[in-house]
Amino acid sequence: MKKSLLLALLLCGCAQGPIALRDMGSFHVGGREVTISGKPVKEVVFTPGGVPAKVDLNGTYLVESMYVQYFLPAQRRGQVPLLMWHGGGLTGVTYETTPDGREGWLNWFLKRGWDVYNSDAVERGRAGWAMFPDIFKTEPLFLPKNEPWGRFRMEGSQFPKEGYDNFVRQIVPRWTSTDEAIIAAYTALVDRVCPCAILFHSQAGQFGFKVAQARPDKVRALIAVEPAGQGDPARAGVLKDVPTLFVYGDGIATDARWPTIRKTGVAFGEAISKAGGKVEVVDLPRAGIKGNSHMLMMDRNNAEVAQLIQDWLEKQGLYR
Amino acid sequence: MKKSLLLALLLCGCAQGPIALRDMGSFHVGGREVTISGKPVKEVVFTPGGVPAKVDLNGTYLVESMYVQYFLPAQRRGQVPLLMWHGGGLTGVTYETTPDGREGWLNWFLKRGWDVYNSDAVERGRAGWAMFPDIFKTEPLFLPKNEPWGRFRMEGSQFPKEGYDNFVRQIVPRWTSTDEAIIAAYTALVDRVCPCAILFHSQAGQFGFKVAQARPDKVRALIAVEPAGQGDPARAGVLKDVPTLFVYGDGIATDARWPTIRKTGVAFGEAISKAGGKVEVVDLPRAGIKGNSHMLMMDRNNAEVAQLIQDWLEKQGLYR
Repeated sequence: MKKSLLLALLLCGCAQGPIALRDMGSFHVGGREVTISGKPVKEVVFTPGGVPAKVDLNGTYLVESMYVQYFLPAQRRGQVPLLMWHGGGLTGVTYETTPDGREGWLNWFLKRGWDVYNSDAVERGRAGWAMFPDIFKTEPLFLPKNEPWGRFRMEGSQFPKEGYDNFVRQIVPRWTSTDEAIIAAYTALVDRVCPCAILFHSQAGQFGFKVAQARPDKVRALIAVEPAGQGDPARAGVLKDVPTLFVYGDGIATDARWPTIRKTGVAFGEAISKAGGKVEVVDLPRAGIKGNSHMLMMDRNNAEVAQLIQDWLEKQGLYR
Repeated sequence: MKKSLLLALLLCGCAQGPIALRDMGSFHVGGREVTISGKPVKEVVFTPGGVPAKVDLNGTYLVESMYVQYFLPAQRRGQVPLLMWHGGGLTGVTYETTPDGREGWLNWFLKRGWDVYNSDAVERGRAGWAMFPDIFKTEPLFLPKNEPWGRFRMEGSQFPKEGYDNFVRQIVPRWTSTDEAIIAAYTALVDRVCPCAILFHSQAGQFGFKVAQARPDKVRALIAVEPAGQGDPARAGVLKDVPTLFVYGDGIATDARWPTIRKTGVAFGEAISKAGGKVEVVDLPRAGIKGNSHMLMMDRNNAEVAQLIQDWLEKQGLYR
C-alpha cells in the first residue's frame, strides 16, 4: 500500500478521502404471507428461444418486506446507527451520489463515522412490490418527468438543474394504499437494528414519527427533513424523551401547499414540546442557509445542511 | 485509529477484514422519453391528512434507465472493472450478503481489489418500471414463494435452506417484453464504464452475450454463470477476442429444463471457439465442486466458486 494512501486512510472520519469500512452488506426485513387462488396457469418463455415454463400465479406469496443496505465505518464515532428513510416515489438512492454526481448524505455521514442503514421502503426499489388489486388495493401512480419540478420547489433553488433528468430516473411508481405495510416493515427494521437515530424525508414524516411512537425506547433522535406527514398528535407525549429536529428549506411561504404542510409538522413538534420534549425547528433561510428545494440532500449546498444536522446530533451527545 | 485496525487495513485485498474504498456511489444510465396522452387528471392525497395534489398522468416520461452502484477499492488489483449482472426477477441484491447472512460475491471480489459495478436492470429494483400496457407491453409476472425452489434446483443442494425466505424477499416482479430495453441500458452502461469484465447470471446470459457482441472492443472477459440465454449464434465470431468462461452447477442432468438450457449455452460457446475464440466450460461437479444450485453466488460454497472465477480471471492477465 502506498504511503500517501495509508496516510489518507489514517485521516478517515474526515470529510474527504477514502472510506474505511469494518463491514458492508444488505438484508430484507419484515413482510407477511398472502395466499392467492383462482388464477389460471400460464406457460411463459422467460428468454427468447428458451424452454417454456409453467407459471401458476396461485399460491402463497411473501410480500411487504423492505430492503436495507448498511455501511459500517472502521472508525465508529456515532453512538448509535443512523437510519435514512427516503420520501414518496423514491428509494434509498435519495441519499447516495447526487443526481449531478456529487457526494450524498450517505457517504457524508459514513465518512464522519456513523453506521448508516439506508433502505428502500415496501413497494419501492429493491423491496419489490406485490400484485394489485389482489394484494396492494389500489393502482400505482407514475410521475411525468416535469411533475416534481414544481411540487419539490426546484425553480430558482439550489437544486442542481443539470442533474434533473438523473433525479427523474430515480423515481419509482408509488401506491397510496400501502402506508400500514410500510410502517410494519420499518418497525421490524427498528426492532432489528436500533437503538438508533432516524433521519427521514417528506412522505416518511409519518413513518418516522409513527414508528418512533411505537418504539420510543429504541429511538435516540429524530431528524425530520421537510416531513409531509407526522405521528398521532394525541400521543405526541410518547416522544418526550426523543430529541427531534425539524429542517425546512426555502421557498415555502410562496408555495401553494408547503405553508400548510409545514404548519401541520410544526404543530406536531409543539405537541411534543408541550409534553416536555426537546424539539428544534430550523427554517434554513432564517439560519442564513438560502435557496434549498424539497430535495435538500441533493441541493448544491447539501454538505452545509448535513453539517447542521451533524452539529445537532453532536449536541444530543450522540457523537464521540 | 487503533493499531490492530490499521494492521487489518494494511492487509486489505485479502479475504477477511475491513474494506478500504477510494470511493463508492451510484448512478442511473440509459433510458428514453415517452409521451402519454388522453388520460384523466386525478386528485390524490399522498399522505393521510395531507393536502390533495392534482396528478396528471399525461405527459412525458423518462423510462427504461437502469441503476448502478459502484465500489472502488483503495488498492485496485483488477485491471478492468468487474460488472455484475443479475438474473430474471432479481436485482443486484443477488451479489450482496447471502440470504443466510454470509459474504456475497460483491464483497468477495471487492476485497480482492476489483472495482465492482453492481446493477439493477431496467424494470427491476432501483431502476424502476414504466406503466403497462402503455409503455411496457405485457403484464408483470409474480413468483409464488415455493416456485423457485424447484426451478432453481435447490432441493438437496448447497443452497442455504434457512435463508430461503430471505431469498424470496429479494424477488421482484418481472416482464417478458422488456429485453430490448434492458439490452439498450446495459449497452449504455458498457459505453460509460468499460473496458471491463462482465459476470452475468441466468436470464442475463442473453444480455451479457448480446451486449458484448454489440461492443466487443470494450469487453475483456465474460463470465457466464448458468446462462439461460445467449447471443446471436450467427455472429458468435465477433467474440473471438473476448475470453469467456461458462460455469454450471450440479443437478443439471436430472432436471427437466437444464440439460437443454446448458446444451444451447455450450453450443454458443463452441461457435465462439470455432471462430478462434478462447472459451472454457466448467461443470462444477466435474471439477470436484459438488452440490451447487442455480444460485451459485448464494450457495454455502459460494467463496469456492468465486475463487474458481478469480483464478480464471488471473489466467486471462486481468489481475496484478
